[in-house]
Amino acid sequence: MGAICSGKEEPEDSSDANVEKQATGPMETFKAVWSRFRYLTEDWLFLFLLGAIMSVFALILDFLSDQASTFHSWAYDQANQIDIGVWRIFATLGVWTMFFVLMLGFAALLTRLISPPAIGSGIPELKTIFRGVILKEYLTIRTMIAKFIGLAFVLGAGVPLGKEGPLVHMSSVVASQLSRLVHSFQGIYENESRSSEMLAAGCAVGVACAFTAPVGGVLFSIEVTSVFFAVRNYWRGFFAAVCAATITRIVTTLIKDHDLDMNTLYQTHFPTGKAYALQELPVFALIGLVMGFAGAAFILFHRKIILFMRRKSMGVFQRHWMIYPLLVAFVFGIFTYPEALGQFMSGRVKFTKTTTDFFKDCTWSNTTYGDTCDESLTNNWTGLSHQDSIFVNLCIFQIVFFVLSVFCGTLPVPCGSLSAAIGLGAAFGRMIGEIMAVCLDGHIESGGKHQEIYPGVYAVVGAAAFSGSLTQTISISVIMFEVTGQIVCSIPIMIAVIIAVAVSIYLQPSIYDSVIMMKKLPYLPDI
Amino acid sequence: MGAICSGKEEPEDSSDANVEKQATGPMETFKAVWSRFRYLTEDWLFLFLLGAIMSVFALILDFLSDQASTFHSWAYDQANQIDIGVWRIFATLGVWTMFFVLMLGFAALLTRLISPPAIGSGIPELKTIFRGVILKEYLTIRTMIAKFIGLAFVLGAGVPLGKEGPLVHMSSVVASQLSRLVHSFQGIYENESRSSEMLAAGCAVGVACAFTAPVGGVLFSIEVTSVFFAVRNYWRGFFAAVCAATITRIVTTLIKDHDLDMNTLYQTHFPTGKAYALQELPVFALIGLVMGFAGAAFILFHRKIILFMRRKSMGVFQRHWMIYPLLVAFVFGIFTYPEALGQFMSGRVKFTKTTTDFFKDCTWSNTTYGDTCDESLTNNWTGLSHQDSIFVNLCIFQIVFFVLSVFCGTLPVPCGSLSAAIGLGAAFGRMIGEIMAVCLDGHIESGGKHQEIYPGVYAVVGAAAFSGSLTQTISISVIMFEVTGQIVCSIPIMIAVIIAVAVSIYLQPSIYDSVIMMKKLPYLPDI
Repeated sequence: MGAICSGKEEPEDSSDANVEKQATGPMETFKAVWSRFRYLTEDWLFLFLLGAIMSVFALILDFLSDQASTFHSWAYDQANQIDIGVWRIFATLGVWTMFFVLMLGFAALLTRLISPPAIGSGIPELKTIFRGVILKEYLTIRTMIAKFIGLAFVLGAGVPLGKEGPLVHMSSVVASQLSRLVHSFQGIYENESRSSEMLAAGCAVGVACAFTAPVGGVLFSIEVTSVFFAVRNYWRGFFAAVCAATITRIVTTLIKDHDLDMNTLYQTHFPTGKAYALQELPVFALIGLVMGFAGAAFILFHRKIILFMRRKSMGVFQRHWMIYPLLVAFVFGIFTYPEALGQFMSGRVKFTKTTTDFFKDCTWSNTTYGDTCDESLTNNWTGLSHQDSIFVNLCIFQIVFFVLSVFCGTLPVPCGSLSAAIGLGAAFGRMIGEIMAVCLDGHIESGGKHQEIYPGVYAVVGAAAFSGSLTQTISISVIMFEVTGQIVCSIPIMIAVIIAVAVSIYLQPSIYDSVIMMKKLPYLPDI
Repeated sequence: MGAICSGKEEPEDSSDANVEKQATGPMETFKAVWSRFRYLTEDWLFLFLLGAIMSVFALILDFLSDQASTFHSWAYDQANQIDIGVWRIFATLGVWTMFFVLMLGFAALLTRLISPPAIGSGIPELKTIFRGVILKEYLTIRTMIAKFIGLAFVLGAGVPLGKEGPLVHMSSVVASQLSRLVHSFQGIYENESRSSEMLAAGCAVGVACAFTAPVGGVLFSIEVTSVFFAVRNYWRGFFAAVCAATITRIVTTLIKDHDLDMNTLYQTHFPTGKAYALQELPVFALIGLVMGFAGAAFILFHRKIILFMRRKSMGVFQRHWMIYPLLVAFVFGIFTYPEALGQFMSGRVKFTKTTTDFFKDCTWSNTTYGDTCDESLTNNWTGLSHQDSIFVNLCIFQIVFFVLSVFCGTLPVPCGSLSAAIGLGAAFGRMIGEIMAVCLDGHIESGGKHQEIYPGVYAVVGAAAFSGSLTQTISISVIMFEVTGQIVCSIPIMIAVIIAVAVSIYLQPSIYDSVIMMKKLPYLPDI
């Protein structure tokens, strides 16, 4: 058969109308097939490489942050063994707080020393590049190294900062460097538009690695970076993202002996067919509404703080730029110290690890019908022993971490804010869910059946809504499907996300656009 | 706060750089807010209406096809009660076959009489329209009525023809008519590009209604129709699709008392974390490869048959155009007659209902470790009593329905071929899965654990791969997540789909492009 193809460009331009075209000779056919084969494989190999490199980076980052977390825990235990009360408190407080100060301090210092463009999420700059603006130093290997090292320290600290933005940035550097490399061999990458296509694929791979969410990654990257999108790129991004996700899963399965299809970030276990009832839909919509306002408030505070710090009266912070990150890290340590305010929040467990608690398919409060969580879960929350204190804890958690997350987001380190958004949204959702469970005694009468209330479902909905509100993307709902490994709550998630995004768009620019405005990047607005 | 917004166009052009802009007075603020509110609500109301109308259409179609199926079953039972052997066989054969002949005959007749442009899938024409070509009569209400009536008869017949293409067509008609309606009120829809945006939303809603798969619907519509895509439309499509899916789910829950989150088309119940092992991945890739070739073969045969029927020597079929559909329907009835060849296939159960059998989380064959399906399932397959006959049955099913599906796809009735693709792919996957289960005695040793083999997982992978190969879209994998209500098999599905799509693209144009070429639609090829 003649090589009839559409949806992908091809070297030999075969006419589309020529459906029943026959090959003219065996040699020509072979040549055409070979050239096509080479063309396709080179392209694919490139995308595969991109996915593989990024998944290795993500895995190394995960490993390092786990090690740092273990070390922190060990050091805290050591300090805790001191017998004399006052000294014990000083020692533990010191270990707890100094860890944050050192980690964030190093992150800020090294990022600044190696390459200042590595500061921040990276998505705003990428968005600008996609509009055709060339940003110097953004796509250099030096910047990527700074981003990697800085991110390793930030993730190791365990503060509410995520890796999706930095991974997107690193991934686009890898993609851009790879295309330059192939270009130098006089391959097929002479085309300049090609490198932009590769950048799009890189963007998708970054999100895919951050959440092992290939589909969501592709969609998120489209929504965040583009105004007009070439469907061809969708294909490339998808392939590279699937490669990345597959490699990540295979490696984690082999190393950690996880079950292959279960090592998603926040695996949930809601029963199919009984996860929620019709009557709960308005509540999910309400969560979306509140999260929309909360997301807009987050963006506003984030911008206000940065603009405030830039004022002339704040000159001391500009001259001695290390003061601000050290101060924020110190305050973060004090506020989360497990024997003071920390005991009402996640205790010694880091913010990013706490999020999994919210998604559990059991109820924290004691109800007749609900399946109450066992003690091992509530141990993290030392204040959780009494029924009423759940709500006190959840309120404190939300308020404190909302403020801390906003401040952490303003630090001059490589950071994304999606993890914070997921955690905060989940906390709010869990709170609403627990309220529902307590008020209705853990069940709803739905069509003559007892429909159990799962506060975990509310947490998933809240997490999706808050992240959607912050990034103003609806593809966050797909990321939530992939991150939780379940799609049963698709309707509630999508309703909440749509409402949250709508509210947030109405009130504020997205967190990325907000940064673009503040950094005064040369950004062409939409018409 | 000033109404700062990006990612959506806005009536008042607020400068992006003007971040901290303050409203000049309360009255102006109110006016701006109101104008924005009205603008947004009109847009949203429109999209909501589109979703609502289409979901009602889809529900009516489902109801009608269920009724027709019940009637067929009842009539067959009546004929079956005749005592005398030969007469009983004549009566049942007559009832069985005549039903298909009448249904497909009426479908062909009414479609042709009311509006010939309603024939076929509709997606190829839509693809052409998106390239800027105006196709007369394609977007009229008359065509939609023809499509609806024709489709009702086709679905009622229960032949391997789906509704996704026709629903996309109907949905674009509704979208286009709605924008004309609003336009006549001198609303905000003067803009011509607006109607194209609405068409894109309509396309998404169509797929969303066919499979209650909002996300997959949006992606599928993008991939199938566009070369360059405005991200803004993605938002619209998503909202309308979610409205449609939500309404469909709520109505089916209220009427049929299904569990709200479980009434997906082919709900699967694979255990999270134990659905597949690492060692099975190559087999899934192999399924993708075979399905890629099978899909290309399907497209090729489909085109060959149509081109053959157009020859001058086939003039009798062109002069008496009713002969062909009646003949195909008759042959279909004979081949599927439950007491002859039909007993080795799905028996009295219609093709579209059989597909659910393939996705079951139990094994048909008897193995030591596998969970063998109960008798009630295997009753549909009357030849299934012996271990070996499973494979005979599955082979016959695939060969016969492959040929019949191709022929049915060439009928002059409103039809999509995605349902056939899902069924055939699932059958192939189930066969491979059963072979694996028998060979390995139902389990794999994976990391010291017994990993049970689920042939249903293979069926899902096969279904996704074959549909992907036929439509040459990778978003079919998202549709499979939503249709099965599970995302545990995401990696196998995506690997298989990517391989299948790649093979198919290499060998043939997609089924839609193939139709565009045959119909000689004025289609601009990709560069």
